Parts: sequence; structure tokens; C-alpha cells
Amino acid sequence: MRLLLPAGTTETALIDGISAAGAAPELMEHTPSADVEILEYGEPVASPVTPVSPNGCPTPAAVTRAVREVVGFDVSVIDAGLTRSTAAPTVDLGVEPGTDVREGVAVSDANAAFDRGHDYGASLPDDEIMIGETVPGGTTTALGLLTALGEPAEVSSSLPENPLERKRRVVDDGLAASGLEPGDCEGEPLAAIEAVGDPVQPTVAGIAAGALEAGLEVTLAGGTQMVAVAAALRHRGIDAPLSIATTSFVADERGDRLADACERFDCELAVTDPGFDERDHVAMNRYCAGEAKEGVGMGGALSLVPDGRMCDVRDRLEAVCTRLGIEAEEGIDDERDGADATEGCRGP
Amino acid sequence: MRLLLPAGTTETALIDGISAAGAAPELMEHTPSADVEILEYGEPVASPVTPVSPNGCPTPAAVTRAVREVVGFDVSVIDAGLTRSTAAPTVDLGVEPGTDVREGVAVSDANAAFDRGHDYGASLPDDEIMIGETVPGGTTTALGLLTALGEPAEVSSSLPENPLERKRRVVDDGLAASGLEPGDCEGEPLAAIEAVGDPVQPTVAGIAAGALEAGLEVTLAGGTQMVAVAAALRHRGIDAPLSIATTSFVADERGDRLADACERFDCELAVTDPGFDERDHVAMNRYCAGEAKEGVGMGGALSLVPDGRMCDVRDRLEAVCTRLGIEAEEGIDDERDGADATEGCRGP
Repeated sequence: MRLLLPAGTTETALIDGISAAGAAPELMEHTPSADVEILEYGEPVASPVTPVSPNGCPTPAAVTRAVREVVGFDVSVIDAGLTRSTAAPTVDLGVEPGTDVREGVAVSDANAAFDRGHDYGASLPDDEIMIGETVPGGTTTALGLLTALGEPAEVSSSLPENPLERKRRVVDDGLAASGLEPGDCEGEPLAAIEAVGDPVQPTVAGIAAGALEAGLEVTLAGGTQMVAVAAALRHRGIDAPLSIATTSFVADERGDRLADACERFDCELAVTDPGFDERDHVAMNRYCAGEAKEGVGMGGALSLVPDGRMCDVRDRLEAVCTRLGIEAEEGIDDERDGADATEGCRGP
Repeated sequence: MRLLLPAGTTETALIDGISAAGAAPELMEHTPSADVEILEYGEPVASPVTPVSPNGCPTPAAVTRAVREVVGFDVSVIDAGLTRSTAAPTVDLGVEPGTDVREGVAVSDANAAFDRGHDYGASLPDDEIMIGETVPGGTTTALGLLTALGEPAEVSSSLPENPLERKRRVVDDGLAASGLEPGDCEGEPLAAIEAVGDPVQPTVAGIAAGALEAGLEVTLAGGTQMVAVAAALRHRGIDAPLSIATTSFVADERGDRLADACERFDCELAVTDPGFDERDHVAMNRYCAGEAKEGVGMGGALSLVPDGRMCDVRDRLEAVCTRLGIEAEEGIDDERDGADATEGCRGP
């Protein structure tokens, strides 16, 4: 199994209050570059920023890395519009960073990104792939894409309290700036992305389209952002089987609406619960409180964990967190999981 | 263990008759881009070229990939002057392709490549790394570097008959074009590389220097090209422990001179024999006949194979060769290894 990870940026993320992917707006554009270093090397290498929220919630890259250290899967990172250099190896598809959706054109090279992603996806010799993403602001641009397509527009958030109304206003402003009404881009997903999307969307969609055409099994590893990509693929007339693999944190927030969306776009849905409630560790507590929830292929990676190994993933996550400078809270509930953490894993 | 693989090009490779890395000169500049795709995906992906000699000898990338499929180690490819795009993810250190050593300046950014490599190497969180290379023409530029440093100048070849005299003439012309005599760059390895080296050399040397400074264990994975890099490091005053891991094919050709060179530059030497004489397969026959010999970290990768698993590597190599379009010769000596190939591996 190979996890492909398009990583990019959009200035939409800098709009106040829409993303938790980075402690401060001016540091947010470093987040995807740091994420892919964590995935490749186990910790940030050249990045001046470690994506940990003020509450001590690490980027989902930490979880995906922890799974990788337990399960071992291939990762290929695709530069889908990074603004900051990264020490991680990246595939260069010539995709440019995205601009603020309120500026009229959000992704000027949406068609080219899709086409290059398509050629790349079609060329892969793998039998099955997962495609994840890291793009701060990505749920807002997912809302934009869904709205422009005229689809039910609901998305998740990396914040415990989803600032959905704020996102809707941003999308409304973006559509207005493009002279569009909701639903105007039905059947034209690349036009929707160009107007109110982000550069990771056409890259993921293109890779998926090319890989599906070449007969690969494709799983979109993510939550509502991947629902938006699935919608884009269906609106482009691609009807090959498609799966979405996400975390229980997204599924818990979205309730039945996630399953409904997957049914609407004819996607198999796999939801994996990493059992973070079994541990009293600040990072896992924050996920259980609704922070971060998904990203960097986390849900897809978790779906690869064999029965009985999730406890090992939690162990590795503690080790990754230590590398990221996150220490477990003091005064932990020893009775609940002290044995797990100190005596080794015995169960799922 | 992580294998770092700086991949680059030098126009020196285009000089008639000095390299076997590519069937024809005009295709040679694709070789490193194809090599790193083979390492990442198991076969060429975007590359229009599959590096297999007219005799059916595959690039050493095929062997390194076969080892990776058996042992599983991390690979990070560094763009050290590629001229052709590659679908493999690469770390961008901004290194430019090298020019013909006979043109006076062979590597205009040798100092910058070393410095960026140094910063990258110093930032790695690994405990130990191997550094390989893929650069057609690299043994000629190794000869150039050693000659400019005033060191015993003998190098291996990817051809069964080493065109050493031709290489010496190229190096002599290169030194003359730079206004240098042999030994003029003693203690100034970056000046030597600038004059008659290639861009992979300062990248490997810089990464090694940074990693050694940060306390990592460093193995140079290669043959005489890595002897030249070791010489460069010693001439720069770096006296940390250093190892060289290469193949028995290089060791067999070089005889005691390889061990002498390693002693001269205070390097531990590890030589691994992949037992290709156990199989009657065209690819392994060609290596036994002295073709290719080493490259793309092959000797280092082979050194990672645990006792008893080399037979599995040969099995995997057959599978990789099939993907590269190489079929085993007909009329194979069934008695010798038919059992190995068809009944599974039982021994080293």
C-alpha cells in the first residue's frame, strides 16, 4: 500500500478563525511543509515550526507517522502548492499555491494540476493507493467546492467548535467575487475549484482519476475534504468504485450526514477509531475533545492497522509526541491506562 | 536505517566511451531520474528510459530495489543536479547539473551544494545513514577529484573493460582547462570538485560532513566514487569515523588497492557478495562478468541483508528484472539453481 500525500497551501487559510492547522496565521503556511517532514523523518527537520496547537494537540501527521512506524507503508509526497521549502522529498507536478477564494480566482492552474495529477496517477505501478492531503484551510475550500457544485455543503473542522457560519460567509464572498451562484458549477468541478477551491483538490482528484483509469484501487484518506473530492470526481463523470477512509472523530462530529454524503457519491466508507480514549495523554485527550480530527491521511493510515495493534500505535504516538516536544500531562489517570503505557500492549 | 541518494548529472558522461550507465549517450541523462523511480516505485514511472545495457544488465537500482523489497529501509532521494524530471519524490537542495570537466568549471556551485548538504545532513534525526549516488560519468569525475587532490588515482568502471586511459586523458584535459596540475588542490576538495568533479560529490560530502558533525554514523554506499568523497572529507580536515560499503564486484576488480585506499582515508570497508554466481539469470550473469558493478547505493543496501536472506534478494531481483523487461536467458543451468528459483529460498 502506498499513501500519496499532496501537500499545499491556500491564502484562504489566513482568514481569521477558520483553521486550527498552525498556532498562528503567520506560521500556518509552514504547516504542510512540517507535516511531510514528520511523515518522512519522524519529526520536523528544516521546518522552523512544529504543528502543535496551544492546547498540546499535535498535527494528524504525528498519528499517521505513528501508524507508519508500526505498520510500515510507502509514502510519496506530492508538492501541490507548498509556499515554504521542506526537507522532505516531494514529487514536483508544478502546482502553484492557491490564493484567497474571495479574490475571484482561487486556483489559476486547476486544469493543469488535474492533468498532471492524472498522468502521474495513471503511471503508478501499485495495485492500490490511498490519497491524503495536508492543506490548512482545506475544509473551507471543501465547502466552497461542494457549494459551487450545488451539493449539500457541510464540512468538518480542525477546531472543536466548527466555525461553519464564518466559512459559509467566506465561500459566499468567494462565489460572489467569481460571479457565481451556488450550483453554477454543476458538472464542472475544475471550474468550481478554480473559483473557490484549493490546489490540493485538483491534484488529489487528478491522481485519483488517473489511477482509477489505470485500474488501481483508490481510497481517499480523509474526511469532508475527501467527500468534496469525491463529489468533484462524480461531477466529472468518473463512476469507478471509490472508498473514503476517515477517523471516528470526523464520523462522530458528522453523524449520519457523513454516511449520507458517501452514499450520495457512491463511496464505500471506512471509519477507524484509534482508541485514544484508552489513554490519558494530552495529545490523545485533545483528539477526543474534537481537535484536529483528521488530515495528512490519518484515517486511511489507521485503517491499515491490523487487529490487536492499535495499542502499539498509541505507544508510538506517545514516542512521536515526545519528539515533537509534547509531554503527557501530569496527574494522569493511572488506573485507566498506566498498565498499557508502562507494561506494554496486549490488546487492541 | 535510511539510504540517502543524491542523484545528478554531469555533461562529462556524454564523452564517448566512458560510461555504461545508459545504452546511448543521448539517453544517459535520463538514467538517474529512472534510477530513483525504480527505487521508489519498483520500476520506471515517468522516465521514457529503462536503464538496461544492450547486454541485458540492469542498473544497480534494480538490485537496491530488490534489497529494499526484502529488507525494507527508508530512502530519501536528493536532487543533486538532475536534468530530466522524475516522478520520484526528491529533496530540493538547489544543486545544478554539472558541466563537462574539460570546460574549465565543472561544478560552479560546489561550495553552495556542500553547505546545503551540510545543513540537511546535520538536521536529520536518524542515528545512522547510508549515502549512495547515481551520476553517469561518476567514476571519471572521481578520478578527477582524486587526481586534483594528489591522491592515488584509480577508479572502477561500469564497463567490463575499464577505459582508464581514456578517463585519464579527460581528467588531464580538465585540469589543464582549469590551469591546474595534479595535486594542486591538496586540502581544497571543493576547489578540486569545482574544477574536475561532479555535483553529486559536494552533495554527498556535505551531507556526510553535516551528519558526522551531528553525531550520526555515516556509511558511504559505493565503490571508488565514494573513495573519492572520503578523500574529499579527509582533505577538508574531517576526521570522524567513516565507513564505505561496496559490492564484491568492485572489490574483485580493484583487488588490494580498494583496501589500501580505505586505509589511506581511514575508512572501514565492508564488501558484500550478493551470490549472483548462484543463479543463471542474464542480469546476474552480467554483474558476474563485470558489468555495472556498483551504484545507486547497491553495496550499502546489500550490507543490510541479514544472513540467510540473500537468496530472497536474488528472487526479488528476478521479479524486478521482469518488471524492467529483462527475461532470464533460455537454457539456464537448471542443476545449479533451478531449485532456488522454483522451490523457494532455503539458504544464503
